[in-house]
Amino acid sequence: MKERLEICLSGSGGQGLILAGIILAEAAGIYDGKEAVQTQSYGPEARGGASRSEIVISEKTIDYPKVIKSDILLALTQTACDKYVKNLNKDGILLADSSLVKEIPDISNKAYLFPIAETAQKKFNTKLVTNIISLGIIVGLTEVVSQESIQKAVCSRVPAKAKEINKKALSLGFDIARGLKNNK
Amino acid sequence: MKERLEICLSGSGGQGLILAGIILAEAAGIYDGKEAVQTQSYGPEARGGASRSEIVISEKTIDYPKVIKSDILLALTQTACDKYVKNLNKDGILLADSSLVKEIPDISNKAYLFPIAETAQKKFNTKLVTNIISLGIIVGLTEVVSQESIQKAVCSRVPAKAKEINKKALSLGFDIARGLKNNK
Repeated sequence: MKERLEICLSGSGGQGLILAGIILAEAAGIYDGKEAVQTQSYGPEARGGASRSEIVISEKTIDYPKVIKSDILLALTQTACDKYVKNLNKDGILLADSSLVKEIPDISNKAYLFPIAETAQKKFNTKLVTNIISLGIIVGLTEVVSQESIQKAVCSRVPAKAKEINKKALSLGFDIARGLKNNK
Repeated sequence: MKERLEICLSGSGGQGLILAGIILAEAAGIYDGKEAVQTQSYGPEARGGASRSEIVISEKTIDYPKVIKSDILLALTQTACDKYVKNLNKDGILLADSSLVKEIPDISNKAYLFPIAETAQKKFNTKLVTNIISLGIIVGLTEVVSQESIQKAVCSRVPAKAKEINKKALSLGFDIARGLKNNK
C-alpha cells in the first residue's frame, strides 16, 4: 500500500458520509495502528448540498490533512461525481452508485459501478445503510484498512440497536466487492 | 472577530466531542455563511484515549485546516487540558470542566471554569449532553457563531427524540456563559 492514501467520500447531505469518514479513520487510526485524519469542509459548496468527507491514512505523521489527489473516490450523486472526479489521482479508483450517478465521466481510471442505495433499500428496507455498504465495498476492493478493523469501528460508532443491520450491510459490501473484482 | 478563528475541543473518547465539532462547523459554514473546516486526528494519541476535535472558522477560504494556535480551548479532562493548553494562543481563552480538571495550568490566559458534566448529570440526569452544554457556553462567551445558527445545527444533528433535551442543554450553556462573564 502507498505510504499516504487519500480517500474522498462524496454525495449529498443526509447520506451519512461524515459518519462513514469517521468510521474509516477510526478503523485506520485506532484499530489498524496507523495515522489517520478525517476532515469535513463547509462553505458555499456545502450550502449547495454537496457533501464531502475526506480521510488521509498514512504510515507516518500526516503533515497536510486534506485530500490533494484522491486515491479512492466514492460518488453517491451525479453532482459530486462530476465535481470530484477531476481530483482523482491517475491511478486512483472511482466507486460510483450506478442508480444515482447515471453518467460516468470519461476517465481512464478504474471505475466500479454498483446500485448501492437501491440494494440497501431492497435488502434492508432502508437507504440509511448505503454509507456502510459503501465502506464494505471500498475495504473489500482496496484493503485500505483490514476487514476486522472496519467492523470494530462500525460497531463502536453506530447506535446499539442498529449494530446488527450495519454489520450485515458491511458484510454485504465485502461480498459486492468480490463480485466487482471478478468482473474486472 | 478575527478573520481566522481556531477552536480545539478536547477530552476523552465518548464525550461527544466529534459531534460537537461537526455541529459547530456546520453552524459556521452552513448557517452563518462562513468557511469552516472540522478535523479529527487519530494516531498514537487517540489510541491512548485522548480525543480532540478541531474547528477552523474563517471569513475567507481556509488554506490550512488544522489548529495551529487555539483561540478557544475546551478541556474536559485533566490530560487533555495539560496537553493542549500549551497550544493556546496568547489571547486565547480556556474553558475547563472544573469537576474533571482539578489543576488548572498556570497560564496568563482568560480561563473560565465550570462543572459542566456534573451540571449535566444534575439537571438532565445524564452526562451525555455535556458536549452540547459546552457548545452553549462557548458560543455564549465568544459569539464565534450566532446563537440562532448553533441551535439550528444542534437540531439538525441530534436524533429527533433527543432534540428537546439538547435544545435545553444548549440554552443552559448560554445562561452559564452569562454568569461566567459577569464574574470576570
